[in-house]
Amino acid sequence: MAESMSLLWGAGSCPSWRLMLTLEEKNLQGYRQKLISFEKNEHKSQEVLEINPRGQVPTFKYGDIILNQSTGACLYLENQFKAQGTKLIPDDPAKQAMMYQRMIEGLELTEKLNWVVYYEFLVPEGERHDAALQRHRDTLTTELKLWEGYLENVAEGSYLAGPFSLADVVGFPNVAYAFRFGLSPERYPKLAKYYNLLKDRPTIKATWPPHWFESEQGFEALKDV
Amino acid sequence: MAESMSLLWGAGSCPSWRLMLTLEEKNLQGYRQKLISFEKNEHKSQEVLEINPRGQVPTFKYGDIILNQSTGACLYLENQFKAQGTKLIPDDPAKQAMMYQRMIEGLELTEKLNWVVYYEFLVPEGERHDAALQRHRDTLTTELKLWEGYLENVAEGSYLAGPFSLADVVGFPNVAYAFRFGLSPERYPKLAKYYNLLKDRPTIKATWPPHWFESEQGFEALKDV
Repeated sequence: MAESMSLLWGAGSCPSWRLMLTLEEKNLQGYRQKLISFEKNEHKSQEVLEINPRGQVPTFKYGDIILNQSTGACLYLENQFKAQGTKLIPDDPAKQAMMYQRMIEGLELTEKLNWVVYYEFLVPEGERHDAALQRHRDTLTTELKLWEGYLENVAEGSYLAGPFSLADVVGFPNVAYAFRFGLSPERYPKLAKYYNLLKDRPTIKATWPPHWFESEQGFEALKDV
Repeated sequence: MAESMSLLWGAGSCPSWRLMLTLEEKNLQGYRQKLISFEKNEHKSQEVLEINPRGQVPTFKYGDIILNQSTGACLYLENQFKAQGTKLIPDDPAKQAMMYQRMIEGLELTEKLNWVVYYEFLVPEGERHDAALQRHRDTLTTELKLWEGYLENVAEGSYLAGPFSLADVVGFPNVAYAFRFGLSPERYPKLAKYYNLLKDRPTIKATWPPHWFESEQGFEALKDV
């Protein structure tokens, strides 16, 4: 099946990571893939735009099916390959509800991280305001504290909604990204514990952004959050 | 079942509408409900915050289960009540993929609508820029043209992903909202056709924002988009 899948992805893009992680968890290795360079603006290339008019990654094809929205693609793959690899949507109603709740909340965390980390990229020079950036930082702090609470009882095998699920597929890349950009493990000990419990999971290691291996952390955008 | 459900909702909130529409489609009438006034800041009241620390609507409880993210709640309800009411996730793989793709894309449309309609609410006075608002309008125009293309072949019974589905549960409130705020049916004829095909659907009429019946359209935020 994986032979009829092809993926254009970006390194360090949370949405790309979600999809690659799901493919690993569902034992769908062996798909065609190409790393797209944001620096070279390749996400706006004809190759991407033909499949994804939004000019974003991931851009994903499975036979004639196109699924470019990572969360939608993850839900689809889980539904199509239920019996294969990790079960990513729990059957237990309470865990399933928690999974859907945290999975969609994870998209809010991604957005709030982006507003701080990429503020200068998202807002043209003449329109930047210190007060706006500070507000984004405060909003992110509030958001991260929520997640710190959600992970109060985090332990091996007990993650955002119990066993590893689509909630973690969306959630983990956010958390890895936050620490990559300097989030303090002392100030967010539960998030740090969650990060450490999952960072060596084989599927996560297999999909780790390649350039993160090459350079030390050294980013400080979230140091004081 | 519906007797153990309770909903706090806001009138004209796309997320609230999605959830109420799903409850109707799944024949889950009879839940307890309360209309929350944004003007009175009731979405930040203790009653909401106890269930939803984000202070947002919808706020939804089903027994002990809390599901405040509307898209997550809709997915959950469809999965728990598959055989009841309208089938909102198609079985056919191509239609199912399209459903997930458009459902998640619908969240992008909501966000882009909000940036134009609520710009002054979202951005404090000293930080507003005509250029920024214009950019948000351009972004929304591009987005709406995408949807106009997605609906190229819209017809009775053939909506965003074939028969009425969760793609429409997310998509229709966006479109209704756009026309409410003055979008031109002449410039977006396929969106207008989609709107007219669905606006009298019984579940949509049953969940129509009540204050929209009372006052004429008369809003012009999207007149020139």
